[in-house]
Amino acid sequence: MRASQLLAPTLRETPAEAEVISHQLLLRAGFIRKAAAGVYTYLPLAQRVLHKIMQIVREEMNRAGGQEITMPIIQPAELWLESGRWHVYGDELFRLKDRHGREFALGPTHEEIITDLVRNEVHSYKQLPLLLYQIANKYRDERRPRFGLMRGREFIMKDLYSFDKDEVGMQISYQKMFDAYTRIFTRLGLKFRPVEADAGAIGGSSTHEFMVLADAGEATIVYCDTCTYAANVEKAESRLIAREKQEAQPLEKIATPEQKTIDEVAAFLGIAPEQTIKTLIYHTEKGLVAAVLRGDRQVNEIKLQNLVDTLQLHLASDEEVVEKIGVAPGSIGPVGLKGKVWQVIADPEVVQQNNLVCGANEDGYHLKNVNYDRDYAVDLVADIRMVEAGEHCPRCEEGKLLTAKGIEVGQVFQLGTKYSKALNAVFLDENGKQKEMVMGCYGIGITRTMAAAIEQNHDENGIIWPLAIAPYHVVVIPVSEKDQQQREAAEKIYSQLTQLGIETVIDDRVERAGVKFKDADLIGYPYRLTVGKTLAEGKVELKERRTGNTRVLDVEEAAQVIANLVKEELARY
Amino acid sequence: MRASQLLAPTLRETPAEAEVISHQLLLRAGFIRKAAAGVYTYLPLAQRVLHKIMQIVREEMNRAGGQEITMPIIQPAELWLESGRWHVYGDELFRLKDRHGREFALGPTHEEIITDLVRNEVHSYKQLPLLLYQIANKYRDERRPRFGLMRGREFIMKDLYSFDKDEVGMQISYQKMFDAYTRIFTRLGLKFRPVEADAGAIGGSSTHEFMVLADAGEATIVYCDTCTYAANVEKAESRLIAREKQEAQPLEKIATPEQKTIDEVAAFLGIAPEQTIKTLIYHTEKGLVAAVLRGDRQVNEIKLQNLVDTLQLHLASDEEVVEKIGVAPGSIGPVGLKGKVWQVIADPEVVQQNNLVCGANEDGYHLKNVNYDRDYAVDLVADIRMVEAGEHCPRCEEGKLLTAKGIEVGQVFQLGTKYSKALNAVFLDENGKQKEMVMGCYGIGITRTMAAAIEQNHDENGIIWPLAIAPYHVVVIPVSEKDQQQREAAEKIYSQLTQLGIETVIDDRVERAGVKFKDADLIGYPYRLTVGKTLAEGKVELKERRTGNTRVLDVEEAAQVIANLVKEELARY
Repeated sequence: MRASQLLAPTLRETPAEAEVISHQLLLRAGFIRKAAAGVYTYLPLAQRVLHKIMQIVREEMNRAGGQEITMPIIQPAELWLESGRWHVYGDELFRLKDRHGREFALGPTHEEIITDLVRNEVHSYKQLPLLLYQIANKYRDERRPRFGLMRGREFIMKDLYSFDKDEVGMQISYQKMFDAYTRIFTRLGLKFRPVEADAGAIGGSSTHEFMVLADAGEATIVYCDTCTYAANVEKAESRLIAREKQEAQPLEKIATPEQKTIDEVAAFLGIAPEQTIKTLIYHTEKGLVAAVLRGDRQVNEIKLQNLVDTLQLHLASDEEVVEKIGVAPGSIGPVGLKGKVWQVIADPEVVQQNNLVCGANEDGYHLKNVNYDRDYAVDLVADIRMVEAGEHCPRCEEGKLLTAKGIEVGQVFQLGTKYSKALNAVFLDENGKQKEMVMGCYGIGITRTMAAAIEQNHDENGIIWPLAIAPYHVVVIPVSEKDQQQREAAEKIYSQLTQLGIETVIDDRVERAGVKFKDADLIGYPYRLTVGKTLAEGKVELKERRTGNTRVLDVEEAAQVIANLVKEELARY
Repeated sequence: MRASQLLAPTLRETPAEAEVISHQLLLRAGFIRKAAAGVYTYLPLAQRVLHKIMQIVREEMNRAGGQEITMPIIQPAELWLESGRWHVYGDELFRLKDRHGREFALGPTHEEIITDLVRNEVHSYKQLPLLLYQIANKYRDERRPRFGLMRGREFIMKDLYSFDKDEVGMQISYQKMFDAYTRIFTRLGLKFRPVEADAGAIGGSSTHEFMVLADAGEATIVYCDTCTYAANVEKAESRLIAREKQEAQPLEKIATPEQKTIDEVAAFLGIAPEQTIKTLIYHTEKGLVAAVLRGDRQVNEIKLQNLVDTLQLHLASDEEVVEKIGVAPGSIGPVGLKGKVWQVIADPEVVQQNNLVCGANEDGYHLKNVNYDRDYAVDLVADIRMVEAGEHCPRCEEGKLLTAKGIEVGQVFQLGTKYSKALNAVFLDENGKQKEMVMGCYGIGITRTMAAAIEQNHDENGIIWPLAIAPYHVVVIPVSEKDQQQREAAEKIYSQLTQLGIETVIDDRVERAGVKFKDADLIGYPYRLTVGKTLAEGKVELKERRTGNTRVLDVEEAAQVIANLVKEELARY
């Protein structure tokens, strides 16, 4: 490809609208342009990257037994009414009517459509397992679309749905997909980690998210420094180490005027926050829930909500707390609380510690030497806290937990019979008995993966594409357009590389060399070949984008050397 | 692929909803399923065919200098308001609102989006020509979607847009696309013909439609039996051969009671319909138009409307004719008509003939021996008729015109500056002068091409895929599933073919051989290899779907022979 013809409009300035690196660089390097909020046109360079990602995904889906199909983007409302999601989905669902007034949704996901298809076409256990997937646009009407391709309103996803005759079959399909995802992200050249994630209300015993590691990632990952344990922070657990019991001291009530927060109280009393008890009051549709944990810990609201199994769960307002418990949130403590709220739940860590300080349920006072069982009772002791770095691994003996930031690019999910039950997708088993199919769903955000690759692979000069998904492998730059020998040598190498199957751009624009170098770094070609003054001695210079390492090559051998380098690296996966 | 795992749900019965062959066979052979009216899911076999069509299209677009991009499906209304099409487009445009009430269209075409992109990114003649294309879903809310993939509401199109600095450049881009389309349909293995088509109100001096020839096609093509001239029937012209003048006879008025139609009048008078004059009255927003032509000819309303340049043109109602001309349509004739209607337009063929019969503009009477000029005058003599088979080619000396039926699968179109003017897409030329870009647009219906391929290639047993776009090249059928030797031999050949790069299905279902043969014909695999009783003598049978020819092969050589056949045929294009 000739840079003079390539539509890759690079920008010197960072557009003000772009908050995250991938969004900034995709705009600056001429990969995307905005058509509307959260809606983008993918320009030729992005198109090439997306094609490569899709091709790797497709190959691995096929290898795992997936069959590719394409389902409609415009989905009839009837199916969504049947599954019950038409009314539940809310404003995130783009809806439209046709000329006859019939309602449609722009698919954010395709469980309804695929389940409808399979219930009509599959009737026997002999046709199972069945793994169907598509790579297509998805729609989600985000309230505030931002971060470029990280959270768009129109985006490309791969979604596969597995149909099995029983739970065991589903586990096998799940493992196939888990392995396929591992191969995909490895082949893409990304540093990633599959982490255990919360399955939420849908149930299903297991779900994993595939996280591309990146400092600016919006998700926190907890992982073991010794074994393979990894989970997202909402799901992460730790192993509690039994503490030595101290002798219980007599309960005391002490005045703590104006001391509201844990830090204020600890400072006032000259103790560590971990010697205090934090009690938070949550509103749910079933009643108030008190979460009791150590003063220095954070509540994991997802764990808490799963435990109490409510539709809503959020911190109660000061007014509601005062009205229902008779004291302001800053003075709440677990002593005498049970029975006043719907449920009191304490974290295992806090109940094993002695002689703690907590709110006295009376404004301006705290209690000292509070001990579980002697001084307060709860409805349930269960893990309700956010795990922190440095805690013990829940799976192995030796490991300590570490944290990292990541971007979720894929998810594998055990759906069970949620949709097959709702849409009556049944089959006859070996004994002629009718059963519901057991389903799984498995997504990869294709456009999001492109953005995540940039979040993980960039520097102050631009993108650093992994070779497997780079839009082109090599850019050839003649330093002086006016120097006929340089131009001819560059053209010759360009033509040789192209013939050798190496995807090459020649920067034949009438621009200063500095502009070409800057664009090459910004766009992130893995290799840059410079044809400059040293050509007089028969030499050209190869620079690797990632390392910055340069290497002088004989002009006659350059194309072959580069082709070997590229092919060797591509063959690594 | 194993048939036991392939989701290809064949049907024995033809679904009642399917009127055309391609729709019937796509449903029966398990290629598509309906999700809503005009909205389909493409099952694995269709997906493979579509991939192959798209890949050939992509290769030829790239070869012609096209750069692939992807534009949004949801397009902001603002751009459509700017181009003026938001209000013009009518009910065929799917419209929706986002959560903030902003309006969007589901793109039926992408002139607005692409012109907006290019006006923002391209400013100099150095960046032109620019050829950008995408392969993506398109939306058209047809009033009555039918004929399956021939006229859907959601369908896949390739659309390329060319931007040039002047008319000459556009002609070059147009020719590149014309040539690319010719290569594409040749490579797809289809019988097709590019035909001249009417450019309509958009103007542009030239446009061609690419027609796949098929008896059930909805378009009529007129072509020369000698030279390359071909046009769709709306655009087709013919060369008029001068007739020998007869001596003009005196005008007579004759009673023709109850004789209304041309055929009735001709029979009543004992003359041929070609000796009569047909006069049709059209309603337009500018006034009535009288079309005068030989009694045996048909008006070409597109030619007529282009001549009078009106927004509307349709036959006037009887009431309007009586009210404005004072006589019923059956008695209208050109004598004395000029001045009573806005325009009288006569076809060149009718004005060169003498002594014709026409309505007397008086109920129950006709005129005999009517001669142009002596007896009647018109506002314009111009070609307003449908050309018919047997007429003379307008381009060559010798040729006679023939007609055929076709399906439009592609169009190349010179847009000129329609959109660049409306959206102000300008650039600076070599002299620093601002100019509007000159555009072209070029579409191929991908899903429609799949359907058209079936309309052209089928028999009473099912589809006959051209090899280049067949979902698989070969099906291997062990006749008896219970015969272990047959099963093993079939498996071995299947595995050999797959290793040789031949796309193969093995029909390993527990079904009678008859069912497998029927499905093989219905699905349309180009080659069927049967492993049956002759295996005992080391023989298997190869059958070619298209010709029905069979060939006995040694079991040991079968895979290699088939692979050679397939590769030879694929290499032909």
